[in-house]
Amino acid sequence: MKKIEHIGIAVKNMDDSNSLFSKLFGAPEYKTETVESEGVKTAFFKCGPNKIELLEATNPDSPIAKFIAKKGEGIHHIAFDVDDIEAEIKRLKAEGFVVLNDTPKPGADNKLVAFLHPKSTNGVLIELCQERPA
Amino acid sequence: MKKIEHIGIAVKNMDDSNSLFSKLFGAPEYKTETVESEGVKTAFFKCGPNKIELLEATNPDSPIAKFIAKKGEGIHHIAFDVDDIEAEIKRLKAEGFVVLNDTPKPGADNKLVAFLHPKSTNGVLIELCQERPA
Repeated sequence: MKKIEHIGIAVKNMDDSNSLFSKLFGAPEYKTETVESEGVKTAFFKCGPNKIELLEATNPDSPIAKFIAKKGEGIHHIAFDVDDIEAEIKRLKAEGFVVLNDTPKPGADNKLVAFLHPKSTNGVLIELCQERPA
Repeated sequence: MKKIEHIGIAVKNMDDSNSLFSKLFGAPEYKTETVESEGVKTAFFKCGPNKIELLEATNPDSPIAKFIAKKGEGIHHIAFDVDDIEAEIKRLKAEGFVVLNDTPKPGADNKLVAFLHPKSTNGVLIELCQERPA
Protein backbone atom coordinates (compact mmCIF):
# COMPACT_ATOMS: atom_id res chain seq x y z
CA MET A 1 0.00 0.00 0.00
CA LYS A 2 1.84 3.06 -1.27
CA LYS A 3 -0.61 5.81 -0.35
CA ILE A 4 -4.28 6.71 -0.18
CA GLU A 5 -5.06 6.91 -3.90
CA HIS A 6 -8.47 8.46 -3.35
CA ILE A 7 -11.48 8.69 -1.09
CA GLY A 8 -14.85 7.97 -2.71
CA ILE A 9 -17.77 10.13 -1.59
CA ALA A 10 -21.39 9.25 -2.47
CA VAL A 11 -23.40 12.28 -3.59
CA LYS A 12 -26.99 12.80 -4.72
CA ASN A 13 -26.41 15.61 -7.20
CA MET A 14 -23.06 15.80 -8.97
CA ASP A 15 -23.47 19.40 -10.14
CA ASP A 16 -24.19 20.66 -6.63
CA SER A 17 -21.35 18.60 -5.16
CA ASN A 18 -18.85 19.63 -7.82
CA SER A 19 -19.61 23.22 -6.91
CA LEU A 20 -19.20 22.47 -3.20
CA PHE A 21 -15.90 20.62 -3.52
CA SER A 22 -14.56 23.22 -5.95
CA LYS A 23 -15.01 25.75 -3.16
CA LEU A 24 -13.41 23.41 -0.64
CA PHE A 25 -10.28 22.81 -2.71
CA GLY A 26 -10.18 26.18 -4.44
CA ALA A 27 -10.07 24.41 -7.84
CA PRO A 28 -12.64 22.60 -9.99
CA GLU A 29 -12.85 18.86 -10.76
CA TYR A 30 -10.15 17.91 -13.29
CA LYS A 31 -11.94 14.93 -14.76
CA THR A 32 -15.37 13.31 -15.00
CA GLU A 33 -16.03 9.78 -16.10
CA THR A 34 -18.99 7.41 -16.21
CA VAL A 35 -18.40 3.75 -15.40
CA GLU A 36 -21.59 2.11 -16.65
CA SER A 37 -20.60 -1.36 -15.42
CA GLU A 38 -20.60 0.05 -11.86
CA GLY A 39 -23.62 2.32 -12.33
CA VAL A 40 -21.67 5.45 -11.41
CA LYS A 41 -20.77 8.85 -12.73
CA THR A 42 -17.55 10.13 -11.16
CA ALA A 43 -15.74 13.45 -10.76
CA PHE A 44 -12.16 13.78 -9.54
CA PHE A 45 -10.47 16.49 -7.50
CA LYS A 46 -6.75 16.67 -6.75
CA CYS A 47 -5.37 17.23 -3.28
CA GLY A 48 -1.57 16.98 -3.44
CA PRO A 49 -0.67 13.29 -3.87
CA ASN A 50 -4.28 12.23 -3.25
CA LYS A 51 -7.64 12.50 -4.98
CA ILE A 52 -11.27 12.84 -4.00
CA GLU A 53 -13.72 10.92 -6.19
CA LEU A 54 -17.35 12.01 -6.11
CA LEU A 55 -19.79 9.24 -7.01
CA GLU A 56 -23.33 9.72 -8.30
CA ALA A 57 -25.63 6.79 -9.17
CA THR A 58 -26.61 6.46 -12.84
CA ASN A 59 -29.54 4.15 -12.06
CA PRO A 60 -31.63 3.08 -9.04
CA ASP A 61 -29.84 -0.28 -8.77
CA SER A 62 -26.41 1.32 -8.54
CA PRO A 63 -24.46 0.45 -5.37
CA ILE A 64 -24.24 4.22 -4.80
CA ALA A 65 -28.04 4.62 -4.89
CA LYS A 66 -28.35 1.79 -2.36
CA PHE A 67 -25.63 3.26 -0.15
CA ILE A 68 -27.31 6.69 -0.07
CA ALA A 69 -30.73 5.14 0.62
CA LYS A 70 -29.26 3.30 3.61
CA LYS A 71 -26.70 5.74 5.02
CA GLY A 72 -27.18 9.09 3.28
CA GLU A 73 -24.53 11.04 1.43
CA GLY A 74 -20.97 10.72 2.70
CA ILE A 75 -17.73 8.77 2.54
CA HIS A 76 -18.24 5.55 0.59
CA HIS A 77 -14.78 3.97 0.39
CA ILE A 78 -11.02 4.43 0.75
CA ALA A 79 -8.81 3.37 -2.14
CA PHE A 80 -5.16 2.43 -1.62
CA ASP A 81 -2.59 2.53 -4.39
CA VAL A 82 -0.76 -0.77 -4.87
CA ASP A 83 2.01 -1.87 -7.24
CA ASP A 84 0.82 -5.43 -7.79
CA ILE A 85 -2.90 -5.88 -7.15
CA GLU A 86 -2.87 -9.63 -7.72
CA ALA A 87 -0.13 -10.13 -5.14
CA GLU A 88 -1.99 -7.88 -2.66
CA ILE A 89 -5.23 -9.82 -3.13
CA LYS A 90 -3.38 -13.04 -2.45
CA ARG A 91 -1.59 -11.61 0.61
CA LEU A 92 -4.76 -10.12 2.11
CA LYS A 93 -6.82 -13.26 1.57
CA ALA A 94 -4.12 -15.24 3.40
CA GLU A 95 -4.43 -12.71 6.27
CA GLY A 96 -8.17 -13.42 6.51
CA PHE A 97 -9.64 -10.44 4.63
CA VAL A 98 -12.68 -11.08 2.45
CA VAL A 99 -11.99 -9.96 -1.12
CA LEU A 100 -15.17 -9.18 -3.09
CA ASN A 101 -13.61 -9.82 -6.50
CA ASP A 102 -10.66 -12.19 -6.71
CA THR A 103 -9.97 -11.05 -10.25
CA PRO A 104 -9.18 -7.32 -10.56
CA LYS A 105 -11.70 -5.44 -12.67
CA PRO A 106 -11.51 -2.16 -14.63
CA GLY A 107 -12.41 0.90 -12.55
CA ALA A 108 -12.51 4.64 -13.19
CA ASP A 109 -9.34 6.64 -13.89
CA ASN A 110 -7.55 3.86 -15.78
CA LYS A 111 -7.22 1.53 -12.80
CA LEU A 112 -7.55 -2.14 -12.05
CA VAL A 113 -9.51 -2.47 -8.82
CA ALA A 114 -10.60 -4.96 -6.17
CA PHE A 115 -12.68 -4.43 -3.04
CA LEU A 116 -12.41 -5.83 0.49
CA HIS A 117 -15.67 -6.57 2.28
CA PRO A 118 -16.35 -4.06 5.10
CA LYS A 119 -17.25 -6.92 7.43
CA SER A 120 -13.59 -7.95 7.42
CA THR A 121 -12.25 -4.38 7.72
CA ASN A 122 -13.97 -2.66 10.65
CA GLY A 123 -16.87 -1.40 8.58
CA VAL A 124 -14.62 0.31 6.01
CA LEU A 125 -15.10 -0.49 2.31
CA ILE A 126 -11.52 -0.67 1.02
CA GLU A 127 -10.52 -0.57 -2.63
CA LEU A 128 -7.14 -1.69 -3.90
CA CYS A 129 -6.16 0.00 -7.13
CA GLN A 130 -3.31 -0.36 -9.55
CA GLU A 131 -2.62 1.82 -12.57
CA ARG A 132 -3.42 -0.17 -15.73
CA PRO A 133 -0.47 -0.88 -18.00
CA ALA A 134 -0.51 1.41 -21.05
CA MET B 1 -5.20 21.82 1.27
CA LYS B 2 -1.86 20.10 0.71
CA LYS B 3 -2.88 16.46 1.04
CA ILE B 4 -5.06 14.04 2.97
CA GLU B 5 -3.26 14.12 6.30
CA HIS B 6 -5.22 11.19 7.68
CA ILE B 7 -8.50 9.32 7.67
CA GLY B 8 -10.10 8.76 11.07
CA ILE B 9 -11.81 5.41 11.62
CA ALA B 10 -14.10 4.76 14.61
CA VAL B 11 -13.48 1.38 16.23
CA LYS B 12 -14.98 -0.46 19.18
CA ASN B 13 -11.89 -2.31 20.34
CA MET B 14 -8.50 -0.76 19.70
CA ASP B 15 -6.52 -3.95 20.31
CA ASP B 16 -8.56 -5.92 17.78
CA SER B 17 -8.42 -3.10 15.25
CA ASN B 18 -4.70 -2.52 15.68
CA SER B 19 -4.19 -6.18 14.87
CA LEU B 20 -6.48 -5.92 11.82
CA PHE B 21 -4.86 -2.79 10.38
CA SER B 22 -1.37 -4.15 11.09
CA LYS B 23 -2.26 -7.03 8.78
CA LEU B 24 -3.72 -4.65 6.20
CA PHE B 25 -0.61 -2.44 6.05
CA GLY B 26 1.95 -5.12 6.82
CA ALA B 27 3.29 -2.98 9.69
CA PRO B 28 2.08 -2.14 13.20
CA GLU B 29 0.78 1.20 14.51
CA TYR B 30 3.69 3.61 15.02
CA LYS B 31 2.08 5.72 17.73
CA THR B 32 -0.77 5.69 20.20
CA GLU B 33 -2.08 8.74 22.03
CA THR B 34 -5.05 9.57 24.24
CA VAL B 35 -6.73 12.96 23.81
CA GLU B 36 -8.83 13.22 26.98
CA SER B 37 -10.41 16.54 25.93
CA GLU B 38 -11.93 14.74 22.93
CA GLY B 39 -12.70 11.47 24.74
CA VAL B 40 -10.58 9.41 22.39
CA LYS B 41 -7.71 6.97 22.36
CA THR B 42 -5.92 7.00 19.00
CA ALA B 43 -3.51 4.76 17.09
CA PHE B 44 -1.70 5.83 13.92
CA PHE B 45 -0.61 3.84 10.90
CA LYS B 46 1.53 5.16 8.04
CA CYS B 47 0.61 4.72 4.40
CA GLY B 48 3.15 6.60 2.30
CA PRO B 49 2.45 10.34 2.66
CA ASN B 50 -0.83 9.62 4.49
CA LYS B 51 -1.94 8.21 7.84
CA ILE B 52 -4.82 6.19 9.19
CA GLU B 53 -5.99 7.18 12.68
CA LEU B 54 -8.01 4.62 14.62
CA LEU B 55 -10.31 6.17 17.22
CA GLU B 56 -11.71 4.42 20.28
CA ALA B 57 -13.99 6.16 22.79
CA THR B 58 -12.60 6.60 26.30
CA ASN B 59 -16.06 7.25 27.80
CA PRO B 60 -19.73 6.82 26.85
CA ASP B 61 -20.15 10.56 26.09
CA SER B 62 -17.29 10.58 23.60
CA PRO B 63 -18.23 11.69 20.07
CA ILE B 64 -16.81 8.35 18.92
CA ALA B 65 -19.13 6.37 21.20
CA LYS B 66 -22.08 8.35 19.84
CA PHE B 67 -20.93 7.88 16.25
CA ILE B 68 -20.63 4.10 16.67
CA ALA B 69 -24.03 3.90 18.41
CA LYS B 70 -25.62 5.69 15.47
CA LYS B 71 -23.69 4.43 12.46
CA GLY B 72 -21.52 1.51 13.59
CA GLU B 73 -17.78 1.21 13.15
CA GLY B 74 -16.29 2.83 10.07
CA ILE B 75 -14.85 6.00 8.57
CA HIS B 76 -15.44 8.94 10.89
CA HIS B 77 -13.65 11.87 9.23
CA ILE B 78 -11.15 13.02 6.61
CA ALA B 79 -8.38 15.38 7.71
CA PHE B 80 -6.65 17.70 5.26
CA ASP B 81 -3.20 19.14 5.88
CA VAL B 82 -3.11 22.96 5.68
CA ASP B 83 -0.29 25.48 6.05
CA ASP B 84 -2.30 28.21 7.75
CA ILE B 85 -5.37 26.91 9.56
CA GLU B 86 -6.65 30.34 10.57
CA ALA B 87 -6.56 31.57 6.96
CA GLU B 88 -8.32 28.40 5.78
CA ILE B 89 -11.06 28.78 8.42
CA LYS B 90 -11.61 32.35 7.25
CA ARG B 91 -11.63 31.37 3.57
CA LEU B 92 -14.02 28.44 4.05
CA LYS B 93 -16.44 30.43 6.20
CA ALA B 94 -16.57 33.07 3.45
CA GLU B 95 -17.41 30.24 1.00
CA GLY B 96 -20.38 29.22 3.15
CA PHE B 97 -18.95 26.24 5.04
CA VAL B 98 -19.98 25.81 8.68
CA VAL B 99 -16.88 25.67 10.90
CA LEU B 100 -17.51 23.91 14.22
CA ASN B 101 -14.70 25.68 16.08
CA ASP B 102 -13.60 29.09 14.85
CA THR B 103 -10.52 28.92 17.03
CA PRO B 104 -8.20 26.01 16.22
CA LYS B 105 -7.82 23.56 19.09
CA PRO B 106 -5.09 21.06 19.99
CA GLY B 107 -5.62 17.61 18.42
CA ALA B 108 -3.70 14.35 18.41
CA ASP B 109 -0.27 14.05 16.75
CA ASN B 110 0.88 17.60 17.60
CA LYS B 111 -1.71 19.32 15.43
CA LEU B 112 -3.98 22.34 15.60
CA VAL B 113 -7.37 21.28 14.29
CA ALA B 114 -10.77 22.62 13.26
CA PHE B 115 -13.82 20.77 11.95
CA LEU B 116 -16.35 21.57 9.25
CA HIS B 117 -19.94 20.53 9.91
CA PRO B 118 -20.99 17.57 7.71
CA LYS B 119 -24.24 19.36 6.86
CA SER B 120 -22.21 21.86 4.84
CA THR B 121 -19.94 19.24 3.25
CA ASN B 122 -22.13 16.51 1.69
CA GLY B 123 -22.29 14.47 4.88
CA VAL B 124 -18.50 14.31 5.29
CA LEU B 125 -16.95 15.38 8.59
CA ILE B 126 -13.85 17.31 7.49
CA GLU B 127 -10.94 18.21 9.75
CA LEU B 128 -8.38 20.85 8.89
CA CYS B 129 -5.06 20.29 10.57
CA GLN B 130 -1.84 22.21 10.82
CA GLU B 131 1.38 21.02 12.43
CA ARG B 132 1.88 22.93 15.70
CA PRO B 133 4.92 25.17 15.81
CA ALA B 134 7.72 23.60 17.88
